[in-house]
Amino acid sequence: MNRILDAIASPADLKQLSEEELGILAGEIRGEIIKTTSCTGGHVASSLGAVEIILAVHSLIDSPRDKFVFDVGHQAYAHKIITGRREAFENLRQQDGVSGFPRPAESPHDVHASGHASDSLSIALGLAKARELRGTDEKIVALIGDAALAGGMAFEALNTIGQLQLPLVIILNDNEMSISRNVGALMRHLGAIRSSAEYRTARDTSQARMEESGAIGRAFVNFGRNAKDSIKQFFVPDTMMFEQLGILCTPPINGHDISALRDILRTALDADGPVLVHVVTKKGAGYVHAEADPERFHGIGSYDIATGKSNGKPCNKLSYTDAFGAALVREAREDENIVAITAGMRSGTGLNSFAEEFPDRFIDVGIAEGNAVGMAAGLAIGGLKPVVAVYSTFLQRAFDQMIVDGALTGCDIVYAVDRGGVVGEDGPTHHGAYDIAYLTLIPGMSVMTPSDEAELVNALHTALKQGGSVAVRYPRGAGVGVPVPEKPEVLPIGKSRTVREGADVAVLAFGDRVACALEAADTLADEGIDVRVVDMRWAKPLDEEAIKAAAQTRLVVTVENGIMSGGAGEGVLEVLSKDGCQVPTIVLAIDDAVVPHGKPDQLLADLGLDASGIAAAIRKAIA
Amino acid sequence: MNRILDAIASPADLKQLSEEELGILAGEIRGEIIKTTSCTGGHVASSLGAVEIILAVHSLIDSPRDKFVFDVGHQAYAHKIITGRREAFENLRQQDGVSGFPRPAESPHDVHASGHASDSLSIALGLAKARELRGTDEKIVALIGDAALAGGMAFEALNTIGQLQLPLVIILNDNEMSISRNVGALMRHLGAIRSSAEYRTARDTSQARMEESGAIGRAFVNFGRNAKDSIKQFFVPDTMMFEQLGILCTPPINGHDISALRDILRTALDADGPVLVHVVTKKGAGYVHAEADPERFHGIGSYDIATGKSNGKPCNKLSYTDAFGAALVREAREDENIVAITAGMRSGTGLNSFAEEFPDRFIDVGIAEGNAVGMAAGLAIGGLKPVVAVYSTFLQRAFDQMIVDGALTGCDIVYAVDRGGVVGEDGPTHHGAYDIAYLTLIPGMSVMTPSDEAELVNALHTALKQGGSVAVRYPRGAGVGVPVPEKPEVLPIGKSRTVREGADVAVLAFGDRVACALEAADTLADEGIDVRVVDMRWAKPLDEEAIKAAAQTRLVVTVENGIMSGGAGEGVLEVLSKDGCQVPTIVLAIDDAVVPHGKPDQLLADLGLDASGIAAAIRKAIA
Repeated sequence: MNRILDAIASPADLKQLSEEELGILAGEIRGEIIKTTSCTGGHVASSLGAVEIILAVHSLIDSPRDKFVFDVGHQAYAHKIITGRREAFENLRQQDGVSGFPRPAESPHDVHASGHASDSLSIALGLAKARELRGTDEKIVALIGDAALAGGMAFEALNTIGQLQLPLVIILNDNEMSISRNVGALMRHLGAIRSSAEYRTARDTSQARMEESGAIGRAFVNFGRNAKDSIKQFFVPDTMMFEQLGILCTPPINGHDISALRDILRTALDADGPVLVHVVTKKGAGYVHAEADPERFHGIGSYDIATGKSNGKPCNKLSYTDAFGAALVREAREDENIVAITAGMRSGTGLNSFAEEFPDRFIDVGIAEGNAVGMAAGLAIGGLKPVVAVYSTFLQRAFDQMIVDGALTGCDIVYAVDRGGVVGEDGPTHHGAYDIAYLTLIPGMSVMTPSDEAELVNALHTALKQGGSVAVRYPRGAGVGVPVPEKPEVLPIGKSRTVREGADVAVLAFGDRVACALEAADTLADEGIDVRVVDMRWAKPLDEEAIKAAAQTRLVVTVENGIMSGGAGEGVLEVLSKDGCQVPTIVLAIDDAVVPHGKPDQLLADLGLDASGIAAAIRKAIA
Repeated sequence: MNRILDAIASPADLKQLSEEELGILAGEIRGEIIKTTSCTGGHVASSLGAVEIILAVHSLIDSPRDKFVFDVGHQAYAHKIITGRREAFENLRQQDGVSGFPRPAESPHDVHASGHASDSLSIALGLAKARELRGTDEKIVALIGDAALAGGMAFEALNTIGQLQLPLVIILNDNEMSISRNVGALMRHLGAIRSSAEYRTARDTSQARMEESGAIGRAFVNFGRNAKDSIKQFFVPDTMMFEQLGILCTPPINGHDISALRDILRTALDADGPVLVHVVTKKGAGYVHAEADPERFHGIGSYDIATGKSNGKPCNKLSYTDAFGAALVREAREDENIVAITAGMRSGTGLNSFAEEFPDRFIDVGIAEGNAVGMAAGLAIGGLKPVVAVYSTFLQRAFDQMIVDGALTGCDIVYAVDRGGVVGEDGPTHHGAYDIAYLTLIPGMSVMTPSDEAELVNALHTALKQGGSVAVRYPRGAGVGVPVPEKPEVLPIGKSRTVREGADVAVLAFGDRVACALEAADTLADEGIDVRVVDMRWAKPLDEEAIKAAAQTRLVVTVENGIMSGGAGEGVLEVLSKDGCQVPTIVLAIDDAVVPHGKPDQLLADLGLDASGIAAAIRKAIA
């Protein structure tokens, strides 16, 4: 039986379809998403939830002339499938396959490098201003989730969007699950709006809803003050807060009803000012297991379609994230001043147990890293010991706050920087490649780079005892499998540990590269090259004695899973130059490159940062 | 005649004063602010506008036990004067004198390192949460201006404040001037609220207003749902948008009426949840020249009290800022795709002429650097050439957006990074010390460091032609006095220029340190040391040939006005190590220190980054 999907080579083909056919197509696309992600893993729940929105938008606009901007972008699988990437989609998130996020280099239909929340409105605003100045008339649509709308950058954009009054459509994808999480007052506000609409949506049948949104659509057509008032009657409680910024907001509609979506979008696209279309969707919609457990299906590895169970054999190694989470719970039992803060990543940063055991001492500020760090500074001033647990790549959003509110104020704050280094499948927008550089430049900041999960536990303990700003930076995924200490110890500040003696070459390794350096040393030993391996432990302050001792060998090699410019290796060079040590030195790190998506080990091998890369660099230099 | 002020050793002394005496004291403090700033310069208009607010708060709370958090902090002079720093205030902004901003190291009454906008609410929120966990009962007050309230970080904090419902008082200092600037929809919203209140305030006499706010106060006392409704009657239009986030907002009151302020604050301080007190003030209040020209009196040098005229003899050298502004206007005349974006700093970044000549192509997004860069990315995707002009220190707020929306998306964006390096009197929160480090680590970002105003003009021209992300980073203040080119030229990418030949030592200098390096070379020539000086022009990409050539001398010295970790000097070390060059090298930069406030030249001398510091370092190494 022929699928409609097989005839969709580009979004233009959607224009030939009836709304009934679009509905059938939505089902086919869901099947495709489930089939592929069951093998590749991916962001299943979000993408299943946005299928109808994406089809409705693409059936009405003319992409890539018209611009469809995705916030975060993990909901864009349907968009990928209908923009000429149906077959390529089978290699989702595989190296050289389709990225899990919109990527301009991959397709002209992908407007910007999506991945970090809350930026889509600024991008759309810039596009709208460019359209005005260039005198063109393309349509601009941004799709943003409720969690991302709470990010400060989105509010900043709304403030300017409300001022400039340029036409653009903001689709607020309001996942009903958010209200249960109760993160932030904005979500409560959205919940109130949804509830007030429930008397309408309770009696929903698809038919009734279509008629209804048709009516809204009609009221909406005659856009302006009167139309605005007539739309307002659909609201029972206060108007939506963004109306007060000059942005017309529609009442919430069912985001899985293509007809309703098309009705309201058709009108919104013709408006002469900014419109926020409030759409309510269900994460994981159309796949029973994802609907039942949207959090697990947010980002998931391969799974069995019939049962929804993950395929991966359970890893017998503790992940760094879990090691951190468990260690923090133990620390918090000993010290009641410890509080944990995360920014919309309770589970991802390993804080579930902490939140359950210490609900009062756990704070999730939502996707708002700047506020997370600012609030941590306030907590520290107030006498507590805040631990800010954020992914390396998202902590970039709090760079200024770490400098001003944290370091310059002189606060004691521990930063648990998860997913440092290359993260793999999520690609360039998610690699934690820059953290060592952006952390070490902050005045007084200490930066620890534990090389295994036991070291991580000790590093956290040390950071909590030390005072000042201290970052503990560790990679994504499984540790090396060593047991974690029952009783953590305080590590000496700025002191390395030599994990293998050697006289010819000294490798100064940071974090997860220590294991690779040891492996390289084993290889080279067979070739008669005697390699010392130092686990530097601290990217700042650096162990000057160990560096000077390394300079007594024939070759110093530094290796880290991070960017070269401003990284730990360059710090080592600075120590060597200051101390007048002249020794051949190789800095192994990520050069000025954008690292693609793929398996982390493969990506690191391609960068020359695995054992064989380290060994090859040494061989070449020694020869 | 004895002043009341002379009896105020700490805020506790305010408690003895009647409201009439507090009013007299406000006048005395104004006199003190004017007297001191007429000699030292400073943030006159904001500080004059906030005198009554500060007195009202301090008369009701018990600082430092209770916490008074200042946003930005340039309005805090009255706070400094009444918290034991009246005499020290005479040395405002002088090295070893009182800082122009709250500094915890300076006084226990200063809660955090104020300076960057929009962070006070996060700090206050953290303090409130700490109070809850510690079971104490101190009062927490944050003072924030309307412009700062529009920053994303403030919105993020409000979102959590509305959720947690912890008691704290937010004083919104709403300067009436903002509406004329019309930056952002939030300000329009505030303007509408003010207008709706005008029917009341029009008939204001001090007496009438006191009665009125007394009434508000009474309605307010019985806090809760009913009280909230009874307060709402004072609003004519929509309720304030932040009410929808669960934050009770008062109607606007006169921020220069101490009795009215105390009435409403007394009640707000007793509330069992967060309250936003909407206060309307006049910038520069009480000093006729500052009231008449609050923009000039925002940040001003020394001035004549009687006439309000600036004392400084007009500088006959063009400032970098003005050279940039004029050059951008010339470029924009040639290329209609150029658009300029700033974040609340139209005048400060030299864009007044641009905004006047190209009003459609000028965008001020308000204090919202993240949105500025995100919008620039949208403009670039839309085919325009955005130039983002932001101070170095504030661009830290857009660090993530420069990486993701700019670099990873592959946009052509020019960053005009003003006030790079040590800025002087504004101190640690304002030094542009980190930019070379945080810019060079961004993949594909080019970074130019022009050494004089003519170089700046050529650098801007080059950046506009080059494509990709290009930052042009230049210092605060006057250039060196060279004529700017009539017709700018395109500088070769990543190529330096040797400005003085020399065979013994090679100084690789960046930006404004080139002139110092030349001066040092002159001094050392007299001592028989032949010093080459290279104007590196580019911090990224670095000129590898020039670096290799430098390695042929006896000593390589790098010098830059910026942080060492991740700076250009470490980049030079990396090139040397990669190329196997072994030569003694000295990296002169700001080590891991917090640079205090003071005269820029003196601060740089203290850091060893002036001509004599460079000469001394060379002498020591050569000896």
